[in-house]
Amino acid sequence: MRPVITLLTDFGTADGYVAEMKGVILTRVPEATVVDVTHDVPPQDVEGGRLALARFWRRFPPRTVHVAIVDPGVGSSRAALAVESDERFLVGPDNGVLSPALLVSGSRAVALSIPAGAAPTFHGRDVFAPAAADLALGASLDALGSPALDVVVRRTPEPRRLADGSIEGQVITIDRFGNAITNLLGLRAQSVEVNGTSLALRRSYADVAEGEPIALVGSTGLIEIALRDGNAAATLGLERGSVVVLRAR
Amino acid sequence: MRPVITLLTDFGTADGYVAEMKGVILTRVPEATVVDVTHDVPPQDVEGGRLALARFWRRFPPRTVHVAIVDPGVGSSRAALAVESDERFLVGPDNGVLSPALLVSGSRAVALSIPAGAAPTFHGRDVFAPAAADLALGASLDALGSPALDVVVRRTPEPRRLADGSIEGQVITIDRFGNAITNLLGLRAQSVEVNGTSLALRRSYADVAEGEPIALVGSTGLIEIALRDGNAAATLGLERGSVVVLRAR
Amino acid sequence: MRPVITLLTDFGTADGYVAEMKGVILTRVPEATVVDVTHDVPPQDVEGGRLALARFWRRFPPRTVHVAIVDPGVGSSRAALAVESDERFLVGPDNGVLSPALLVSGSRAVALSIPAGAAPTFHGRDVFAPAAADLALGASLDALGSPALDVVVRRTPEPRRLADGSIEGQVITIDRFGNAITNLLGLRAQSVEVNGTSLALRRSYADVAEGEPIALVGSTGLIEIALRDGNAAATLGLERGSVVVLRAR
Repeated sequence: MRPVITLLTDFGTADGYVAEMKGVILTRVPEATVVDVTHDVPPQDVEGGRLALARFWRRFPPRTVHVAIVDPGVGSSRAALAVESDERFLVGPDNGVLSPALLVSGSRAVALSIPAGAAPTFHGRDVFAPAAADLALGASLDALGSPALDVVVRRTPEPRRLADGSIEGQVITIDRFGNAITNLLGLRAQSVEVNGTSLALRRSYADVAEGEPIALVGSTGLIEIALRDGNAAATLGLERGSVVVLRAR
Repeated sequence: MRPVITLLTDFGTADGYVAEMKGVILTRVPEATVVDVTHDVPPQDVEGGRLALARFWRRFPPRTVHVAIVDPGVGSSRAALAVESDERFLVGPDNGVLSPALLVSGSRAVALSIPAGAAPTFHGRDVFAPAAADLALGASLDALGSPALDVVVRRTPEPRRLADGSIEGQVITIDRFGNAITNLLGLRAQSVEVNGTSLALRRSYADVAEGEPIALVGSTGLIEIALRDGNAAATLGLERGSVVVLRAR
Repeated sequence: MRPVITLLTDFGTADGYVAEMKGVILTRVPEATVVDVTHDVPPQDVEGGRLALARFWRRFPPRTVHVAIVDPGVGSSRAALAVESDERFLVGPDNGVLSPALLVSGSRAVALSIPAGAAPTFHGRDVFAPAAADLALGASLDALGSPALDVVVRRTPEPRRLADGSIEGQVITIDRFGNAITNLLGLRAQSVEVNGTSLALRRSYADVAEGEPIALVGSTGLIEIALRDGNAAATLGLERGSVVVLRAR
């Protein structure tokens, strides 16, 4: 079986940093299937990396090694982690980007040893890519470092219940289409209110006319605000943190 | 032989949607070679997806499965297609994006059954990726759905002959370099006229001086307007639909 | 062993040009591992391509074939090269983009024969991809063309020593994070001066406070100017060619 290693970074591709990592991996594990997740996370947007990782990491086969690097603290004292969670492995900085896997019951994390010659500005090449290669070759987590007992965890903010029984949530991310994804689960909801506009909860984009806003349950079960054939975030003025209220009636 | 599955979408990569699809595919077909064509089709630009697909789909080996998703109508009643054409397979929405393959004599299309739990906003993950995996594993087209007899086909607009014998065409797309690609075949042409400027038909960009506009026959046989070491579309004010007239003398 | 072929271009991906190349390669070498380095080199930025290539080409395993195409002169009389250098192969235009490999002692270059039907606007598809496939299949360099004795070589500009003993260098590229990478080696340096600001040489981004500029030795050994959690180039007004002076004290 060919090992699968995925790469998520905020490096872009044009500078060649990602290629350096791929070279390191393929030199050590020539039979690896190296999968680009993305290199277009906005620079240093740990939260964006975390939310993307949450979407895909369990969709890959058991034993997949996910490399996730959005790392403003590279070279500081922040730990470099390898994680085993739900039959997958992950490597990345200890800044919360790996939280979706760390929050799973039974997950384990170790702090990677930093090789003597590692560049303090590029752990992707000198720490994380080698660790991913080791895991793909079958190394155990414990062979890579000592247990990390106190790791940084980021959580999606929780919605809160208001006095009138409705629930106040917020936009957690805007996707490429301008859809605003919220922290609100769609179960039993009837409508949402956003920036003074009330939107009935519908099933799919096609349930409204072109240019009309719509609320629906997205592909991870969270309510999102969209605009048919348009950009909801731009049109409705939504961004991360914008308040969205869910009405049960 | 390892099956080849290519991916063309307008999803971008940063949100993790494409990674979800890759995870689904590699879970079902671990030995697949998954090829990124592009995820940078402008959002919901079916025409852009169609024109890109036209370029590459027959360059891949027989039995390749091409996934092409630019899908503003996801979740509506539009069909989801699987197509067999000229020894390749394709999957994507029934909105014209697959036209280059559908227009080939002998092509066949089926309407995919939509699994009960498929997210109405993300057929890429829940309908098209699984269908591509099935085809890569050797499923027949007929095993995936019922014949689709009435499919949406988009065609590049035809040039028309003018009273004076010249031929009026138009710009069909602008590429990354600002080259304006027309619907005019280059055979026997002598010059083209665009926005009042007449350009002799030359062989390659190097046949004019830096900063000069040029008309030539591009790599698919169509006439394109370029600007040496510059951006023709920006400089000459060209966009999709701009009129270009071809003179035989 | 599966052959590795990497691709670096300024083509973007949306137009389908890169996919055409991948189709050509996989048709000839179905077992190849095709690695995307980048397709986001700024259009026609030969220097950007050269600097990226310098970073990664030797990180890949011996026998890797690197395709590097930033080619404003396509279709002119510029030669198309295949190069063997330090156990790797490279193909690309003779405009300096391959310099990092050409400057290695013992490297050899041949001028590829141009197939009769090759499109003068797209050697990537019709010249370089086929040559890369041939090399991946084990062809010798000499089977692909005649020795190229006079090739274009681009060099990073050399720093110069000033009367007071300090060394004047320049910014050679700006990366995605806005880090300004210079041509100055970091050995024995104490501080650098840039646009009137003096910066002590530190070890990593974390050695200064948020929003503060910093000079450090980057991951290829060259001094770079960064801004913690920010964009140094934008904030300090740096671009390629900006002067940076290194003080030994």
